[in-house]
Amino acid sequence: MPSVIALDAMGSDKAPKPEIEGALQAARHHGVHVLLVGPEAHLRAELAHYPGARRLPIDVVHASEVIAMEDKVEAIRGKRDSSIRIGLRLVREGRAAGFVTAGNTGAAMATAKVVLGALPGVDRPALAAAFPTVLNTAAVLLDVGANVDCTAVNLEQFAVMGDIYCRSIFGMKRPRVGLLSIGEEEGKGNDLTREAFHLLKRLPINFIGNVEGRDLYNGHVDVIVADGFVGNVALKTSEGVARLVRAVLKETLKATITRQVGAYISRDAFADFKKRLDHTEYGGAPLLGVKGVCIITHGSSNTNAIKNAVRVAAEFAEGKVNEIIEQELAALSAPVST
Amino acid sequence: MPSVIALDAMGSDKAPKPEIEGALQAARHHGVHVLLVGPEAHLRAELAHYPGARRLPIDVVHASEVIAMEDKVEAIRGKRDSSIRIGLRLVREGRAAGFVTAGNTGAAMATAKVVLGALPGVDRPALAAAFPTVLNTAAVLLDVGANVDCTAVNLEQFAVMGDIYCRSIFGMKRPRVGLLSIGEEEGKGNDLTREAFHLLKRLPINFIGNVEGRDLYNGHVDVIVADGFVGNVALKTSEGVARLVRAVLKETLKATITRQVGAYISRDAFADFKKRLDHTEYGGAPLLGVKGVCIITHGSSNTNAIKNAVRVAAEFAEGKVNEIIEQELAALSAPVST
Repeated sequence: MPSVIALDAMGSDKAPKPEIEGALQAARHHGVHVLLVGPEAHLRAELAHYPGARRLPIDVVHASEVIAMEDKVEAIRGKRDSSIRIGLRLVREGRAAGFVTAGNTGAAMATAKVVLGALPGVDRPALAAAFPTVLNTAAVLLDVGANVDCTAVNLEQFAVMGDIYCRSIFGMKRPRVGLLSIGEEEGKGNDLTREAFHLLKRLPINFIGNVEGRDLYNGHVDVIVADGFVGNVALKTSEGVARLVRAVLKETLKATITRQVGAYISRDAFADFKKRLDHTEYGGAPLLGVKGVCIITHGSSNTNAIKNAVRVAAEFAEGKVNEIIEQELAALSAPVST
Repeated sequence: MPSVIALDAMGSDKAPKPEIEGALQAARHHGVHVLLVGPEAHLRAELAHYPGARRLPIDVVHASEVIAMEDKVEAIRGKRDSSIRIGLRLVREGRAAGFVTAGNTGAAMATAKVVLGALPGVDRPALAAAFPTVLNTAAVLLDVGANVDCTAVNLEQFAVMGDIYCRSIFGMKRPRVGLLSIGEEEGKGNDLTREAFHLLKRLPINFIGNVEGRDLYNGHVDVIVADGFVGNVALKTSEGVARLVRAVLKETLKATITRQVGAYISRDAFADFKKRLDHTEYGGAPLLGVKGVCIITHGSSNTNAIKNAVRVAAEFAEGKVNEIIEQELAALSAPVST
């Protein structure tokens, strides 16, 4: 039986094209059964352009409303029949094993918390972002924006969930888990990180202590735990720096004819460069700790990003990641036998 | 009368060479009188290698101890005769108008707070970092690590000080001041930023509301206000991304002979690129809000970075930045006449 994954067909900036093509690829190459969620007539008309689609396990589930990237909280609440809500309901009702959206992150997180609810033992679900490092490994930062004003216990649960995510999805044996702080010594940081440090130290994980912002990308740590405000700032700052670097590089390479010639000769280096820093291979950001699988990808997601997110959603479900999270958190709060 | 600036001769990773050469350039090109602070015999022997030094306004002030980058808090406290402490004392005693160090940032901040004390009206001094944007303007982020667990009133004072810094040192008429948050709408963020938003809104500055991590480098905002923990994470994450990008670019450009040829042809583009992203032009990070001028530069500072930091320290003193900070903060707390 292939995994059934519900996919918000109207999420990305260029929807529904990347979603439809991503669904086709996930069905063809990874054997996933995809439920495309969105306006049925529109989606069927689009699907008709792909003759091969008929032979693939792809179905359409109707949702009459679409949440826009710029929609405010009230507008989101009012859209009871949005593709995000319908998709998440499919998961709650057991008709899909997971849900993927490239739509409004805030709306997806809030709706998932309400429709799916938190796993037993999880106080607050956390959004986990994966990215590449200098050593060409993957690192995971969580939370990147599902929560603000976290407690030390929230961070403790993030550490456990991030560890399980890395083991299950990236196949790491014993991920190195760090606490995002300022300064490496135990006493460094703020009230929250100092309290969390003590909790993380006694967890049955490979806790390597405090890490700093510069460690996110150097491959020295696999799971980085942070309050959602801090994690979101780190993630968006990274986007800002990456854009700055690309803009300046482009400008300087175009400044003279000679430079343009040089850049042309080494053009496939720049293609490689882009690919190495490409986040679309990592399959989006899972909202860890909800009952069911919910993966949120960037609004600019292309076909490849959608395909990978659908694949990872299926891996999550098949790997029983949520069951493991539940078990390991229950073991933590169980009385210690002596 | 030229400004007198005390310079920690033993701060940088390659001390005292960049310090001595930076002092020579600041004295020669900007007319600054530099007091080199460090082990006298050693510094005099080094200075003897620069015959031109004799005719320049450069003096040596003896300090027997040096604080290392890796020194812990206790070690720092024990070094009563360190070049950082002696340099800051010169400022307190009025023998120097400002102090510059490329040494241990934590030690410099802590010692400055103790030796100089805070300006009237300032609850907590803030470290302000300047960096380049896509539009080739300068932007200033504060606090980048002098304080953690800030209150909204701390952030209010940071906003006033950052505004004055941009006006005085970068010559901006009406800097756009933003509050670092997650999400642009007024209600977005955490408890601290929501409270600070209300305080910043009523300040007589050009407050443009919440900004996000990706706005740091896009030139849409000139002063970014943040708690020191968050600001430090943003700054160090930026360093991490920049290193990742450089490493990957280098690797991909070296992968084949063809690419190497292309890169060689456009080599001055890469030199330009490096220069555009170079932080050494900005003259280091001032610790705003202490009685006196204290500027901290990166441990990797070269001659140019030191020269610029000494120049900016003199500009700070001559521009009476501290007097303006005192006046504007006093005006804020004065009863409003109706």
